Amino acid sequence: MVIDLQFRSGLCFSEVNRMKSLLFSTGVFSRSEIDVVEELALEHINKGIASGYHFITCQTPTQLCGFSCFGPDACSNGSWHLYWLAVDRNVQHEGIAGSLLQAVKKEILPCGGRSLYAETSSKVSYAPARSFYEKSGFGSEALLKDFYDVGDDKVIYSLRL
Amino acid sequence: MVIDLQFRSGLCFSEVNRMKSLLFSTGVFSRSEIDVVEELALEHINKGIASGYHFITCQTPTQLCGFSCFGPDACSNGSWHLYWLAVDRNVQHEGIAGSLLQAVKKEILPCGGRSLYAETSSKVSYAPARSFYEKSGFGSEALLKDFYDVGDDKVIYSLRL
Repeated sequence: MVIDLQFRSGLCFSEVNRMKSLLFSTGVFSRSEIDVVEELALEHINKGIASGYHFITCQTPTQLCGFSCFGPDACSNGSWHLYWLAVDRNVQHEGIAGSLLQAVKKEILPCGGRSLYAETSSKVSYAPARSFYEKSGFGSEALLKDFYDVGDDKVIYSLRL
Repeated sequence: MVIDLQFRSGLCFSEVNRMKSLLFSTGVFSRSEIDVVEELALEHINKGIASGYHFITCQTPTQLCGFSCFGPDACSNGSWHLYWLAVDRNVQHEGIAGSLLQAVKKEILPCGGRSLYAETSSKVSYAPARSFYEKSGFGSEALLKDFYDVGDDKVIYSLRL
């Protein structure tokens, strides 16, 4: 059981490598996917939420346990994207992902957020992610056949806030 | 009939304001949507295709007639997004959009592009865009209810290359 968890909005430079290590620890994400999150993190550090990317981290006094990256869809009125929600392999199944999602919703609602969208893969290795979304109230709204690769579809989940 | 059309890959700084005027001329796009294309254009000018955004313009010796902005999906193997395809209001219905789409496909195929995705609104004012995609071989693959706003769905089209 992890105690003394803090959920913080924002990100500082020293946390970027810890986020990357955390993603590697899960064994789920490819190198290029991890490069994408680094890019979004640096955008956020340079421009703040004007970058379009919000971050919330979950930390103990000594460790980064998880994080979420999300942001408003620039062409919509009230639709937000949940780009990343990841928890360190060593502290999974302790409710941290659910608490991160609650923190995300709490930040989005006062900004006029109506819906939160999450996209994930149809591959077996992403079954825990799909299961998490379904248990958290997201509905599977669309499927893009072979989007990520041949035989690897994109599933689009949405959550009404 | 517009003659002496040139299709060019890339973009220079002086073309950004011409692109914005062209988008205003169509009467379809909102201010914030036009701001997004400016942002992508400046990214492209600063970083080239490393920005993730490709541009093709269609020009006469004196006028910008249309442009397209597109790029690979960073998390996929072979899926590309058609972010924008716009033609000046004064030269619409002359086949320029179709020629731009051909130029986009020609640039994507040697890069290993398998599919091209286009997203648009379900609103009546976007009927010409939807009709163009359908006539050009795109299929409507998904619909995200109320995505852009309440009563304004996102339609996702895909074209297999």
